[in-house]
Amino acid sequence: MGKARGNVPQNAREPQDDMLAGLRRSIDNIDAALVFLLAERFKVTQKVGAWKAESNLPPADPAREEQQIARLRALAADADLDPDFTEKFLRFIIDEVIRHHASVERG
Amino acid sequence: MGKARGNVPQNAREPQDDMLAGLRRSIDNIDAALVFLLAERFKVTQKVGAWKAESNLPPADPAREEQQIARLRALAADADLDPDFTEKFLRFIIDEVIRHHASVERG
Repeated sequence: MGKARGNVPQNAREPQDDMLAGLRRSIDNIDAALVFLLAERFKVTQKVGAWKAESNLPPADPAREEQQIARLRALAADADLDPDFTEKFLRFIIDEVIRHHASVERG
Repeated sequence: MGKARGNVPQNAREPQDDMLAGLRRSIDNIDAALVFLLAERFKVTQKVGAWKAESNLPPADPAREEQQIARLRALAADADLDPDFTEKFLRFIIDEVIRHHASVERG
């Protein structure tokens, strides 16, 4: 951090500065990885949805969701990520999945 | 899929069936990867937040956000992921980051 900042004079601290640009490139890399992982996750949950529809299982499974949330909160704490945010994040994803499953059921 | 299903009699299609259990193990693996990537992303955005606070830059940057959204929508389409969902996902993450930045500013 010190080296990069040493190259940036005080008056050059604009959104385009080198420090900010470097950090943003890292964010862009991570975001691409997140998108591809989410795509893979939805491929798996689509299989789950088709299987549930075929087996007459309900789209939502509250007991499974509770297990997922407890597990991810523990992983988040290990990784120094806010467990409350992680739980909100998982619920956001699960809500989307349930919408997909429900539409498979209706379809 | 056919092989695993061949091992599961019709009347055993419960939430604990082998097919569902296997798919859920894949989801759990992907979720752990998502959590660790998110932890890394927040490490980077904390650096961005500290830098912005120190440089008197505003926490939110609408032009940057538009670029991120356009890029991720294109990546999502490549990966066969719903671009609208991807945009909602990114806004969900960015909103959390802005809350963090705003609290760094106030702090």
